[in-house]
Amino acid sequence: MSIAPLALTQGDPAGVGPELTLVAWQRREALSLPAFACIADIDHLARLARRLGLDVPLQACDWNQVAELFPTSLPVIPLGHIAAVEAGRPDSASADGTIASIARAVTAVREGKASALVTNPISKVVLYKAGFSHPGHTEYLAHLAGDDGKPPHPVMMLWCEDLAVVPVTIHVPLRAVPALLTTELIVETGRIVAAALKHQFGIDAPRLALSGLNPHAGENGAMGDEDQAVIAPAVSQLRALGIDASGPYPADTMFHARARAGYDAALAMYHDQALIPIKTIAFDEGVNVTLGLPFIRTSPDHGTAFDIAGKGIARPDSLCAALRLAARMVAAQQTNPAS
Amino acid sequence: MSIAPLALTQGDPAGVGPELTLVAWQRREALSLPAFACIADIDHLARLARRLGLDVPLQACDWNQVAELFPTSLPVIPLGHIAAVEAGRPDSASADGTIASIARAVTAVREGKASALVTNPISKVVLYKAGFSHPGHTEYLAHLAGDDGKPPHPVMMLWCEDLAVVPVTIHVPLRAVPALLTTELIVETGRIVAAALKHQFGIDAPRLALSGLNPHAGENGAMGDEDQAVIAPAVSQLRALGIDASGPYPADTMFHARARAGYDAALAMYHDQALIPIKTIAFDEGVNVTLGLPFIRTSPDHGTAFDIAGKGIARPDSLCAALRLAARMVAAQQTNPAS
Repeated sequence: MSIAPLALTQGDPAGVGPELTLVAWQRREALSLPAFACIADIDHLARLARRLGLDVPLQACDWNQVAELFPTSLPVIPLGHIAAVEAGRPDSASADGTIASIARAVTAVREGKASALVTNPISKVVLYKAGFSHPGHTEYLAHLAGDDGKPPHPVMMLWCEDLAVVPVTIHVPLRAVPALLTTELIVETGRIVAAALKHQFGIDAPRLALSGLNPHAGENGAMGDEDQAVIAPAVSQLRALGIDASGPYPADTMFHARARAGYDAALAMYHDQALIPIKTIAFDEGVNVTLGLPFIRTSPDHGTAFDIAGKGIARPDSLCAALRLAARMVAAQQTNPAS
Repeated sequence: MSIAPLALTQGDPAGVGPELTLVAWQRREALSLPAFACIADIDHLARLARRLGLDVPLQACDWNQVAELFPTSLPVIPLGHIAAVEAGRPDSASADGTIASIARAVTAVREGKASALVTNPISKVVLYKAGFSHPGHTEYLAHLAGDDGKPPHPVMMLWCEDLAVVPVTIHVPLRAVPALLTTELIVETGRIVAAALKHQFGIDAPRLALSGLNPHAGENGAMGDEDQAVIAPAVSQLRALGIDASGPYPADTMFHARARAGYDAALAMYHDQALIPIKTIAFDEGVNVTLGLPFIRTSPDHGTAFDIAGKGIARPDSLCAALRLAARMVAAQQTNPAS
């Protein structure tokens, strides 16, 4: 099945994103990567390629040329912002370009010129200094996606071939989790995950496994009441919606290979409960997927890694997996469109 | 190196402990298991062996006969309490015998007749109904160990060949963790773990890696302050004590194979943070080790499993690993005695 090319953002030009983009293109045949274009400052990419000794012919182009160019050169959609930074030395002067690359990529996807969005890592600190007012990357995408009125509810899923896991609460202090965890939030998250598994992963009747919040899922209330009072009702409500949800299960026994075979996605109640298992089994090749947006978006599951940027040692596994997964989701969605 | 036999408790006679004991003995040669004796109702074991078709010759004996008997029969130290229960049907009438087996095993270890304690699973609910007044198995052992006045501080470590991890707080609701987590508790736990790694695991200069409590270890206080206010000072204090401690690290990036190579034990701040990674990578063969007692104690990392008891399907991997580890710790302690 033929799909439009993927739109890959530049990310912070001082981070590892640009060099991973070059290396990912080099591995396009070995890994059967889908065609993609990077929306970037082509001169910055060229300097980086020379410095790292990477033989990557770059070609400035329009979206309609990407598919043809991709086998022989890395297609670059000119950003129009100069990335005058050195790898490893972030500078908020690059913020406007970083943000513009994201906005341009969203526009390309919404206009159908690109099929999905793959984002390189950005640094919130760098953007904040330049006046960026959104809490993070995903919130900015939700803002761009919501310009037609309906605010989307983005849901973060971590994905690898062996596990898909969704944290219901994410970047909050652990002590804030119990109060933030509501039956409504769990149900809404579960609905979005189930819909995405069906339409973007091609799973007819997705099975969701919900973790408990407390040790042993509370052991019948002996160690905390949220498992029975908050999570169990969410399981019931999801089932009433026709979704094959089960739990709450003790989180520690949910993630070994035999247990993983019993569900298509796990809903975990907080950040580490979700990210510990996937990073333990797939540290290099995990993918961050944002569900609940009106377009497909994946990203590598790592940050800008300024400390190793420009050294040619960053691993492209996660970006390559993000590119492959985005294309797979696009193809599945064409076969299983939402009603 | 020759060591005294291990003392294996009966555990709840309606749970999987007795049948796993029989199967473990059958695998003594294949797995090079150390000699052990079970303190049990021999008639109950005999009935179970017949019912499951397990060819295990049982031999009632004294401790001084165990080493000689072990190659050809399962040595049983007569318990003096009849276990009149069916597998899978727990009955508090068996509680006295379950408790007596533990007490007898501790006595044997303290008298030097046995070298270490390996405990089969018990059910707190069953014991509570019979008037048992200790919070759990480990607390009862601490009570038995503390009869000379100094109360020990037992520390639970989960161990497999690839990872040793210690939860600083354990069986408490998640919402209670932040208040329970003190610098003093972390330091005391780290001291006990470092001493045990040195004297019972033969690691000269043990490396401890401490996790953060919050996502990304709080990201410099942006997501919770305990990482900087409570855990970082504990790392400093441990280092001041001459212990090679480091952290706090983001918990999600601590447990993949490359990260694990950087430490000998991880200190996690709460139950699931510790148990998710080890049960994800070693679900069947993890061992529960109690450090900080005046004797060595290991146990399988699972419960009574009443739902599958008596069916012959429970896996003996964890009990076998617990037996092997106990013997290994005894041997290391003989070579590296505490000063």
